[in-house]
Amino acid sequence: MLVKEIGEFGLIDRIARLLPSLAPDVVTGIGDDVAVLRTSGPAYLLATCDIQVEGIHFIRNAITPYQLGKKAIAINISDIAAMGGQACWILVSLAIPGDTEVAFIEELYTGMREQAGLAGAAIVGGNVSRMESCMAIDVTVLGQIAPEHLVVRSTARVGDSILVTGFPGQSRAGLELIRRPEIKIDEEVRRTLLARHLTPQPRLRDGQLLARSGLVHAMIDVSDGLLADLGHICEASGTGAQVGADQLPRGEGVDETAGCAGADALSWITSGGEDYELLFTAAPESVPELREMLLRETGTSCSEIGKITGAGGAVRLVLADGKDAPVSSGSGWDHFAGKD
Amino acid sequence: MLVKEIGEFGLIDRIARLLPSLAPDVVTGIGDDVAVLRTSGPAYLLATCDIQVEGIHFIRNAITPYQLGKKAIAINISDIAAMGGQACWILVSLAIPGDTEVAFIEELYTGMREQAGLAGAAIVGGNVSRMESCMAIDVTVLGQIAPEHLVVRSTARVGDSILVTGFPGQSRAGLELIRRPEIKIDEEVRRTLLARHLTPQPRLRDGQLLARSGLVHAMIDVSDGLLADLGHICEASGTGAQVGADQLPRGEGVDETAGCAGADALSWITSGGEDYELLFTAAPESVPELREMLLRETGTSCSEIGKITGAGGAVRLVLADGKDAPVSSGSGWDHFAGKD
Repeated sequence: MLVKEIGEFGLIDRIARLLPSLAPDVVTGIGDDVAVLRTSGPAYLLATCDIQVEGIHFIRNAITPYQLGKKAIAINISDIAAMGGQACWILVSLAIPGDTEVAFIEELYTGMREQAGLAGAAIVGGNVSRMESCMAIDVTVLGQIAPEHLVVRSTARVGDSILVTGFPGQSRAGLELIRRPEIKIDEEVRRTLLARHLTPQPRLRDGQLLARSGLVHAMIDVSDGLLADLGHICEASGTGAQVGADQLPRGEGVDETAGCAGADALSWITSGGEDYELLFTAAPESVPELREMLLRETGTSCSEIGKITGAGGAVRLVLADGKDAPVSSGSGWDHFAGKD
Repeated sequence: MLVKEIGEFGLIDRIARLLPSLAPDVVTGIGDDVAVLRTSGPAYLLATCDIQVEGIHFIRNAITPYQLGKKAIAINISDIAAMGGQACWILVSLAIPGDTEVAFIEELYTGMREQAGLAGAAIVGGNVSRMESCMAIDVTVLGQIAPEHLVVRSTARVGDSILVTGFPGQSRAGLELIRRPEIKIDEEVRRTLLARHLTPQPRLRDGQLLARSGLVHAMIDVSDGLLADLGHICEASGTGAQVGADQLPRGEGVDETAGCAGADALSWITSGGEDYELLFTAAPESVPELREMLLRETGTSCSEIGKITGAGGAVRLVLADGKDAPVSSGSGWDHFAGKD
């Protein structure tokens, strides 16, 4: 049996079955985006890593090394944000061909340094190694959080409202504009969409505010795709979810770019991925307070898009006419299936 | 300018210059093998990562996936051992072609799990990603240590004795036997040498005992090569070192294999690398006590091989006839220079 036959999540399931069950010092382990660990101090340690592989996650002439550095850090800090944590320390493992320009690496690290600095984190270690075929950047971010503020994905409750920050789909629209630069669109909108894809900004402060409010039941960042990540919440929580297509926020430029590309804007919003927005659940009565708090403290807009249901595992997307759109919780980015 | 023109250590120097100086919560950062970090608790957090790239660090038909898994974990735990720390948690970032056999990955993780278990550590997270050209395994090990037990590389003192555990060069001899299986040698010796290369065992307990003795001034593990790693101690400590060629331990099978291969056994011992032995310095009067302690507690033999000198940065290898062998502190493994 080959890895591509069982896909990324099938492989992770098999790996998880091989590993021993959680030790007492491990609060959450394999299967979550972030490991939560008990150290010698009162704060939990958070640890997450994600790799950017040339040709898979990025194409070298479609992103500058500075942008690539920023993005490699941002996507990991986004995982810390989704737990409500503080990013602290970063290790960078770099595998590169020997004929890489030193200037490229210096720009890459400049981007990484600046993105880390925005989060108050520092690059404290790592390693560099040769790899001839392509470049890969594996980033480990270590964070900390007070145990009473930790929010995980597994504690959504039936009846919860589902909320998402910002505008999922804009990153996917930005990717389309990179692939098809001939698409005509207002230049300012183009810049916004390209920035959403090339230099996403993790919602670190929003995540911390949401976690500290004590009102959020479950949270995840949108990396695989809105519905896929909602599926991760549901699977971990033993719940279902129902999302209203007409409740989804329509970010500037998404419909227009999809229209020019002959693509379905709704599928970009629900399954485009790489949005790095926060997707979270809370009791319906908390929704106004949470939305106002984010708007007031960070200026982040936040949309209520559906409800957590009792239908174990199943994520439904209900169209304006009341019919279900043909999506499953498995929709979204899978490295090996290559769905997009 | 290309990366291969300035080499691994030249690149690390340039990266370090780009990054801000140490924050108050960082005890040691870029340039060391392990970052030492102040968390909310009394223990320091240790963090290190190292990648194994197919075609560079391993060849797929020369090592089983089980052995590869063990080695990927062991080489990182060795860095924790060299600080005297306890290995606790492990993240594994895996980049693999889609047509990799699932059974290969399961064997790989079985090896990782077992090696982690030997150290009392657990694999608690990571990620899997597609990479078409080759396979890469990046492992991050997190450890802990009481601040009073921490040993770093930068505190060697002039006049210190230099000691090394075990038998550097056996790993390099094992590599030769993989490359040239036609070399005739006693089968038990062959198995020992192959094991030294394919499944090195980090000296975790030895490192802890040495660190807790309070007698060790500086320590590092031998990964790049004995003299290169001694050079790292000297550079960080602002000292020099003098090693006596006839003081170096001659491990079983090293001279014989080098003889069959028409190679220089001394260069394998001093520069072969991947030994994962502990190289440390201590006052001459502490040497008998330290050697006896290791022999008694773990059965590890340990050789006194030279002295720390005042000659800033320079590492001399003195032959039996009193002449210097032509080596420099830069000798040893460099990913981009590819010296071996």
